Amino acid sequence: MKIHNFSSGPSILPKEVLQKASEAVVNFNNSGLSLIEISHRDPAFVEVLNAARSLTLELLDLKDKGYSVLFLQGGASMEFVRIATNLLNKKAGYINTGNWANNAQMEASFIGEVQEIASSKDRNYSYIPKSIHIPQDLDYVHITSNNTIYGTQYSEFPTVDVPLVCDMSSDLFSRVLDFSKFDLIYACAQKNAGTSGVNLVVIKNDILGKIEREIPNIMNYSKHIEKESMYNTPAVFSVYVSYLTLNWIKDKGGIAAMERRNRAKAHLMYSEIDRNSLFYGTAQQQDRSIMNAVFYLNEPRLTTLFDDWCIKNSIYGIKGHRTVGGYRASMYNALPIESVQHLVGVMQHFEESI
Amino acid sequence: MKIHNFSSGPSILPKEVLQKASEAVVNFNNSGLSLIEISHRDPAFVEVLNAARSLTLELLDLKDKGYSVLFLQGGASMEFVRIATNLLNKKAGYINTGNWANNAQMEASFIGEVQEIASSKDRNYSYIPKSIHIPQDLDYVHITSNNTIYGTQYSEFPTVDVPLVCDMSSDLFSRVLDFSKFDLIYACAQKNAGTSGVNLVVIKNDILGKIEREIPNIMNYSKHIEKESMYNTPAVFSVYVSYLTLNWIKDKGGIAAMERRNRAKAHLMYSEIDRNSLFYGTAQQQDRSIMNAVFYLNEPRLTTLFDDWCIKNSIYGIKGHRTVGGYRASMYNALPIESVQHLVGVMQHFEESI
Repeated sequence: MKIHNFSSGPSILPKEVLQKASEAVVNFNNSGLSLIEISHRDPAFVEVLNAARSLTLELLDLKDKGYSVLFLQGGASMEFVRIATNLLNKKAGYINTGNWANNAQMEASFIGEVQEIASSKDRNYSYIPKSIHIPQDLDYVHITSNNTIYGTQYSEFPTVDVPLVCDMSSDLFSRVLDFSKFDLIYACAQKNAGTSGVNLVVIKNDILGKIEREIPNIMNYSKHIEKESMYNTPAVFSVYVSYLTLNWIKDKGGIAAMERRNRAKAHLMYSEIDRNSLFYGTAQQQDRSIMNAVFYLNEPRLTTLFDDWCIKNSIYGIKGHRTVGGYRASMYNALPIESVQHLVGVMQHFEESI
Repeated sequence: MKIHNFSSGPSILPKEVLQKASEAVVNFNNSGLSLIEISHRDPAFVEVLNAARSLTLELLDLKDKGYSVLFLQGGASMEFVRIATNLLNKKAGYINTGNWANNAQMEASFIGEVQEIASSKDRNYSYIPKSIHIPQDLDYVHITSNNTIYGTQYSEFPTVDVPLVCDMSSDLFSRVLDFSKFDLIYACAQKNAGTSGVNLVVIKNDILGKIEREIPNIMNYSKHIEKESMYNTPAVFSVYVSYLTLNWIKDKGGIAAMERRNRAKAHLMYSEIDRNSLFYGTAQQQDRSIMNAVFYLNEPRLTTLFDDWCIKNSIYGIKGHRTVGGYRASMYNALPIESVQHLVGVMQHFEESI
């Protein structure tokens, strides 16, 4: 029976990507060697890495606009520190829209002064702050475009006069934006850009080199750019999965096509949450994420029953984050609309059965 | 035709490991889902991570001796910084036996004061310094047990009164040592412990928590230990390949069995380097690495000829590091002795052909 994978990340990947990645582990490019046992400086792998970097710029429409792309290691959590290390001189502004935004700010606070310039914590992160006053004296402003745990997402971004840094871990490549408005975009790969083990970092080159701090090479974006993302051995397999995933996005029509599919899925999902008498959503309507729909049972006593109902119906990864409970349907690029239709059907039948 | 893989890393892995890893990418544990699209908090993956951590202690004979095992990201290069961040209060001592040892020291120097307490740079890193005077006022001493680029390896380790930190990236799990003499052992996985994307760190718990510096969570060993190596999303696939590789080592008889095989391969290889009139080795005999045999042609004009000869004979990854040239036969655990026999035969035929 087909399993419907709503995992929040690591999350569903296209079947073609999994098939090719699996083949490469035993025989890469018909070389007779595995992808994971060849040198990372083998031309065949260097080509993969460079193609993935180039494809990232192409998909984001950032070619020839002064940006560099890196595939680094350590998760978005490592970028929390690396960003502050490379950009924070005097003070940075952070907008707190949830757990990960808060972590980004907390890790940066070990490096320098940070100011929380807006927060939606007052209503349990159920909305995106609007009309934010941005102080003039900031080295950069940091935001988190999509908040997986609470199911909120920016639809409009604040206008700032300083570099805008954005954690797009859970919605990069899912919708068309004017990416040139951002000076640094980063994302762990395990949502829409591959699997865990690698982080994409897209940096406008001219924001670097303005810091007085001495930076260890491995933490230094300029060093990684100089070495073309090969300062040390990359996470070869994870980079390859990103490469395959980016190619899949391109083959399917690029980000615009992804967005159309994602909006259709989200519409279907939220319509059912709003219609179904057993469930309710928590995110403010206009700030609802098209990636992660978070919802709860009106009657918590039905929890075990609905959990079992989901398992019986081959629904995987639907439980909410352990800090907030409830349910979360993650609908990343690779999730087919059929899986959302299936879940909606399951919710309808559950309602009828009660 | 079978390819003989002498790559210095990422390097050869057991066929069984590659086969199982490949299968898991399409169907993990017959779950109908891929290993790389399930949550890292799925019990099936948590079990893999915990088994890999436990197996590491078992193979190193460090169970119940106060050590913790972490599978982190960023490569050994990230540990260069993390080690200094967690352990360097006033001054640390580094022994410089090559490029990587030197990098470890250089990266630590961004964090605090480092002292080079010995070096073999005077003779191009062709030996391991002996009878080193260790100052009393060091927070720790850092050494690199095996130097892939120069083909040298410690056979005896310095006795120190302060924590001994060892980069075993290229020889962990290859020979039996009294690992309890070390307070922190670390290694990138892509030699004997899996593929790139993950670093093993084995820490004696009681050396931590003695630093005044405030440490970002992602850089903090204590935080990673508290979260059982799951502070953030691990490099799931790379951890799984380590898990499979560690199981393979255990199934084949553990580290003692690996060492017997490795010594037989190294003996064969060095005997040919010493015998063959066309080649010479550079590492001092008593410090020769059983992992990486580095050798050169007496007559550089034969280089292209020998390179072609190797390619024709399906020998992969034999070129020396780009900074030193020549040749390097890496003979990690997974390399069968037949590959060394093959290479020796190729060298003999080459000699006859000249």
